[in-house]
Amino acid sequence: MNTHVTPNAAEAEIRSLVAEWSAALEARDTERLTAAYTDETVLYDAIPPWRTVGRAAIKAAWDACMPHLPERFTSRHDELEVKVFGDVALIHGLHRMVPEDGEHPCGMTHIRITSVLRRAGGRWQVEHEHVSVPFDPMTGQVAAITEV
Amino acid sequence: MNTHVTPNAAEAEIRSLVAEWSAALEARDTERLTAAYTDETVLYDAIPPWRTVGRAAIKAAWDACMPHLPERFTSRHDELEVKVFGDVALIHGLHRMVPEDGEHPCGMTHIRITSVLRRAGGRWQVEHEHVSVPFDPMTGQVAAITEV
Repeated sequence: MNTHVTPNAAEAEIRSLVAEWSAALEARDTERLTAAYTDETVLYDAIPPWRTVGRAAIKAAWDACMPHLPERFTSRHDELEVKVFGDVALIHGLHRMVPEDGEHPCGMTHIRITSVLRRAGGRWQVEHEHVSVPFDPMTGQVAAITEV
Repeated sequence: MNTHVTPNAAEAEIRSLVAEWSAALEARDTERLTAAYTDETVLYDAIPPWRTVGRAAIKAAWDACMPHLPERFTSRHDELEVKVFGDVALIHGLHRMVPEDGEHPCGMTHIRITSVLRRAGGRWQVEHEHVSVPFDPMTGQVAAITEV
């Protein structure tokens, strides 16, 4: 695991947010899951539409997604890098849902996540997030990320 | 076209960089195309591998890509938003290659681009870039972005 560590409070806050996001996802609590998004957050998600804007729309997308997730899973990040530049932070790395009971399509690939956050009023909020899996240009099929 | 405009010099510099990148791509000049990358730039590209680190590796990926591009094309950005936070800038939007002579696989979808840049020594350099097309979770196929 290649983790960039800068020993400061801001990075600790960001890593707490990531842990909280994972806990919210495992609990299927889409209110908590979207707590750091604002009305202006622009999400490029791994699946269509190509862009989703604002917390309410992002929450609705997660609500629609919930029935398709494994019944029980853990949410895990790998290769997570957190860089803080004053009141702006950049996170990038891999996320994976690890199903607890056998195989599930959601567990077949790591998903790349990039988030840009800003601190406003003492809180970190997501300005923009880009989530994806690469594709094989010869077939147009998803190229699953299985080894990191 | 939904373009966020902040009237300041930094944004003008960033938009110049984007225009220069497009001109370099149209000229197939991979030196110019990668001029704003550093040895530490982390690229999440639209096609495997899931991560490419450093200007030399990114240039090599572009060199390998060149034979697969249309012979003549224009490089076009849409829905480009540029946000500057002091010495950090965030760009996100769509890029498309428009072939000049008929259809070509490269022209069949817009590609989402997110870039995070930092100004160091008076120059903007790319800290991280994430490039992707979403996929259809029912088929695992690329979900082309054709209308914006």
